[in-house]
Amino acid sequence: MDTKFSTAIHSLILISETKEPISSEQIARSVGTNASYIRKILGMLKKQGLISSRRGVSGFKLDKRPYELTLLEVYEAVNNNPFFDIHQNSSDECIVGRHIKSTLNYVLNDMENSINKELSNKTLADCIEHMKNELTPEEIEQL
Amino acid sequence: MDTKFSTAIHSLILISETKEPISSEQIARSVGTNASYIRKILGMLKKQGLISSRRGVSGFKLDKRPYELTLLEVYEAVNNNPFFDIHQNSSDECIVGRHIKSTLNYVLNDMENSINKELSNKTLADCIEHMKNELTPEEIEQL
Repeated sequence: MDTKFSTAIHSLILISETKEPISSEQIARSVGTNASYIRKILGMLKKQGLISSRRGVSGFKLDKRPYELTLLEVYEAVNNNPFFDIHQNSSDECIVGRHIKSTLNYVLNDMENSINKELSNKTLADCIEHMKNELTPEEIEQL
Repeated sequence: MDTKFSTAIHSLILISETKEPISSEQIARSVGTNASYIRKILGMLKKQGLISSRRGVSGFKLDKRPYELTLLEVYEAVNNNPFFDIHQNSSDECIVGRHIKSTLNYVLNDMENSINKELSNKTLADCIEHMKNELTPEEIEQL
């Protein structure tokens, strides 16, 4: 798995919590990457209706409230592939090779379902709350 | 994620269920890959004590009973990396950048825990049973 999901969560926290509208360049500086990568991630979030550009001004805004935005929605917006892969060239001439796909799907589907359940039970608001619990009073003031 | 985990499950079912000892070349034909890749996977399973070579004859044997061999042990034998990555270059100059790692770890650790729980609840015997339920009586006879 690449870091699109973690970058998306980082970006969404910034969009939600900074007082002034934040640009892709500013997000990139905080994430420690380049602005074109951030624009790619923000484009995916925008396409799924999680954020939108601010009309007439720079920056972005959330299109859902943080407590309504599940991490599953975030994950699905930035990843098209299933979490887990299976090999695709098993031989039909072998009994095990012929039936392995169904058995592996049984294993991998259950893994995917447990991840999906976990992600649908957490929202952006949970992440923000977790982060705020780590901040010093001075940091909360500056946010 | 690559296909080492699915290839390992396929190989272990073959080692467990074929009547005659099975070689890495035969496993490779069933999986649809080359024998050197299979030898790499089998080397990892051997290193973790899940299988061993048969003394004086070709082929491999399980070192645990299928119902004692959890899929978590199989997964951990063939994958050193965590399931999920986070970006590593967040800026300390930004409050969110400074604290994001702890928040992302909270999300990703819970995802990993749910996967680990799922995998520790399934054994190789469950996979074999699932596969046998798919076989025709003729296929069971040939196995």
